[in-house]
Amino acid sequence: MQLGWIGLDVGGTGIKAGLVVAGDVVVERYVPTDRKSDLLICEQLYGLVQDIIQDSQGRYEIVGIGLAVPGAVDSTAGLAVGAANLPWNNTPVCAYLQERTGLSAFLENDTNAAAVGESVFGAGRDVDNFFYMAIGTGIGGGIISEGRLLRGGQAQDAGEIGHIIVDMAGPVCACGQIGCLEALAAAPAIGRMGREAAERAGKGWLWERLQSGGTVDAKAVFEAALAEDEAALDVVARVGRYLAVGLIAVRRLLSPDVVVIGGGVASGGQLLLDAIRQGHRELGAKPVELRLSALRQPGIVGAAAVAMGQIQEEQSLKST
Amino acid sequence: MQLGWIGLDVGGTGIKAGLVVAGDVVVERYVPTDRKSDLLICEQLYGLVQDIIQDSQGRYEIVGIGLAVPGAVDSTAGLAVGAANLPWNNTPVCAYLQERTGLSAFLENDTNAAAVGESVFGAGRDVDNFFYMAIGTGIGGGIISEGRLLRGGQAQDAGEIGHIIVDMAGPVCACGQIGCLEALAAAPAIGRMGREAAERAGKGWLWERLQSGGTVDAKAVFEAALAEDEAALDVVARVGRYLAVGLIAVRRLLSPDVVVIGGGVASGGQLLLDAIRQGHRELGAKPVELRLSALRQPGIVGAAAVAMGQIQEEQSLKST
Repeated sequence: MQLGWIGLDVGGTGIKAGLVVAGDVVVERYVPTDRKSDLLICEQLYGLVQDIIQDSQGRYEIVGIGLAVPGAVDSTAGLAVGAANLPWNNTPVCAYLQERTGLSAFLENDTNAAAVGESVFGAGRDVDNFFYMAIGTGIGGGIISEGRLLRGGQAQDAGEIGHIIVDMAGPVCACGQIGCLEALAAAPAIGRMGREAAERAGKGWLWERLQSGGTVDAKAVFEAALAEDEAALDVVARVGRYLAVGLIAVRRLLSPDVVVIGGGVASGGQLLLDAIRQGHRELGAKPVELRLSALRQPGIVGAAAVAMGQIQEEQSLKST
Repeated sequence: MQLGWIGLDVGGTGIKAGLVVAGDVVVERYVPTDRKSDLLICEQLYGLVQDIIQDSQGRYEIVGIGLAVPGAVDSTAGLAVGAANLPWNNTPVCAYLQERTGLSAFLENDTNAAAVGESVFGAGRDVDNFFYMAIGTGIGGGIISEGRLLRGGQAQDAGEIGHIIVDMAGPVCACGQIGCLEALAAAPAIGRMGREAAERAGKGWLWERLQSGGTVDAKAVFEAALAEDEAALDVVARVGRYLAVGLIAVRRLLSPDVVVIGGGVASGGQLLLDAIRQGHRELGAKPVELRLSALRQPGIVGAAAVAMGQIQEEQSLKST
């Protein structure tokens, strides 16, 4: 029987669950997150796991459970420490699932889990040292160093590229700092800059969209840039420069061989990569190899990869 | 007999050599570097080692040799790859010394060696995750992660905080990039900003020094700031802000528990640390624990610590 790992991707809106076999999601479930309490979320997770076990009976041997959760985690103790959009409260979610299912459970911060997923099944499969950057509503990152996730010291929150200061004269970030990359290049900032640029231009694709009451968000900005709208091209170039400043810091501090880019804004594709490369050139920096994420379900696959990695590590420790 | 490690600190001007016993330099030598060829430097190093061995005969048992060299190194192969101010050319300096002395030899980039020195004998003794930053003619750094030096991917040059971009509108750095930390906060930049600020002020300690034909360098700027010269205080505050931007990137990407500051500019002492802390506050960032280097001879002690670490690692690999 083929081996399978259950991946649970816990978000503020919904929980995605899946059975991952050889990197593919072969069974999939979804429930809206019940955010009233952390215990309710644990019960939802247990329900999803039971459901997947039932569905895969006789076809796959389930080895363990991995969780990807937003916010701070203590992966050694298996605790979901806290998050802005979920009622975690040092919740022992791994112990809970382990006790009720008999399966080993492991958890990781969601961006770190996606980095592990890229390392095992995705765009970082062939490299031991790479940086994963997710650009969406926020900007996060994960570091794979010598094939393993690098978590840092006591705070265990290494990889937070979103809160590098890229412009000391920039806007205040939600984190309280001035000029963070996240405040200048995440999806909300791209949308805002797109609307401002369209207003200033007073013509073009983006401006017409604004006039007709359409939404100008990050997606629209990339769409307009593809249609060669000047205002949108300007915004994409600016975003590329900010991301280049962040990635130059990554290159200089971590010396990764590759940078893998995921998250919603990665749908900007080659346009986004070209803008980051152009940003490097304008700043006089050597380019770094950029790749787009190769995972369709980074949350589920990443969570499963975390469990795979932990179980393999435990087994190799036992065998020495 | 007590164990000793030979540390060789190879600089563009001179080579410092010493025997390190329990973290102290008990025998010390110095020769001006003969920069005509890499072979001549190797011969100088051999001469210094012989000299130290002779001097310590009967008192200490010499275990191995460590080298700290500027520029790019391949520590696995023991090669001094290349440097701006030394004629390295993939020089197999470790093999050379090993063959002629019978002692195991190891090399490391000088800033990384100093980081290892702080980790074993200095301000980072009690922490497993810290960042070492050296501020002098340039700005460099070394990463200690889970008690070990982190070198990064193929380029093996992680830790290069000096070439993080802290001001996209800043001056061009010697590396070709725009607005690097090194171009704005290393000793030459501090001296330049001091002279400019004094000229603008047209009065005060720094200005009077300039008028009397005295040198206004980084040291003078800190001296003037201690004497509460306004122009100098302004420069120190600016430098503190730039360093804060660099260290915020370090904090967010690497999550170290402590930052250790060394190099010539670290003689600015509490004034420098206070300026960096103030920079964090102005940028809305949480402070990181800052410590001043605890090593008087970071080059020699760091080089010896590199040899100690490598030899211990080899022995522990053998014993498993």
